[in-house]
Amino acid sequence: MVRWEPGARERLQAAALELYAARGFEQTTAADVAESVGLTERTFFRYFADKREVLFDGQDRFRQAFLDGVAAAPAGASAFEVVAVAVLAASSFFPDERRSFARLRQAVIVANPGLQERELLKMAGLADAVAGALRARGTREPQATLAAETCMTAFGVAFRQWIAPPEERSLADIARDVLGELRALTGPDD
Amino acid sequence: MVRWEPGARERLQAAALELYAARGFEQTTAADVAESVGLTERTFFRYFADKREVLFDGQDRFRQAFLDGVAAAPAGASAFEVVAVAVLAASSFFPDERRSFARLRQAVIVANPGLQERELLKMAGLADAVAGALRARGTREPQATLAAETCMTAFGVAFRQWIAPPEERSLADIARDVLGELRALTGPDD
Repeated sequence: MVRWEPGARERLQAAALELYAARGFEQTTAADVAESVGLTERTFFRYFADKREVLFDGQDRFRQAFLDGVAAAPAGASAFEVVAVAVLAASSFFPDERRSFARLRQAVIVANPGLQERELLKMAGLADAVAGALRARGTREPQATLAAETCMTAFGVAFRQWIAPPEERSLADIARDVLGELRALTGPDD
Repeated sequence: MVRWEPGARERLQAAALELYAARGFEQTTAADVAESVGLTERTFFRYFADKREVLFDGQDRFRQAFLDGVAAAPAGASAFEVVAVAVLAASSFFPDERRSFARLRQAVIVANPGLQERELLKMAGLADAVAGALRARGTREPQATLAAETCMTAFGVAFRQWIAPPEERSLADIARDVLGELRALTGPDD
């Protein structure tokens, strides 16, 4: 019999992050995580495929935030303008109250090459999805891929700045600056 | 006693790629690879840490090609001009006679998420190295990271085009075009 545990997903996520940060990812089992919040290992696996995936939950909604951004860009926008809208749309996925969670998660990921690889694959998958959405809008290749990957670069740079103490600006504000820097990079007066 | 096997490294690499492509990476052991060219598993492990690393040999020289490019760029060059030189320098690492090997390697990697992740981590490490070299030249952040990651994007797009049949242009020629497209992407007339 499968019982629904109210808030179990969120409790497991918070507990996992705390234990991975304190003891190390390798040293923590799914059972440890479940027990620390009074749940069973079996409940853990009802929500997450393994102890790694608990760190990558919410990926579909994050991807959708990018795609919604692409869809929201005006019809005549250039590929770069479209990705700029997508980056800002995705930024709204990380309001300031998620900053400390995001910071802790990043510390756990940076400490483990296997998790870094998983994170990079996630971002590559996002870039592919954005490139596909750009092509569907009529952007040709290689512009679609260049714009999509550049979009991920801008998002990544902004995100790492957002979680770097003592940064206090919102992710969207930082992303706007980074997009400006990216524009200046290839411009004539760089 | 450690015996030196002439050409063993290259024979193991070629055999590994062939077996991974034919049977699948997961289905092939280091012993299979070694035996197929009349060597022992022990010899395999004298050259490669594991059956994955045989696909990532030559990484240090590849990284050095990028860094040599950064070093070769003229003193007053913009960050984007410096990475353009680095991308072209790295392109020379893949002369046309390596195209079929590169194509086969890519097919093996694309078929296996673990290998894709390893490849992405390699490219991320390269971007970090290039960003470091740019900072050492005086480029400030976030330009250094933006330029370095954009450099990897351009290289990756050019590389995938280079190995896509029936492409016949050299990697350097394709890279030049891609760098032009990247410049146009953020330009006023995009």
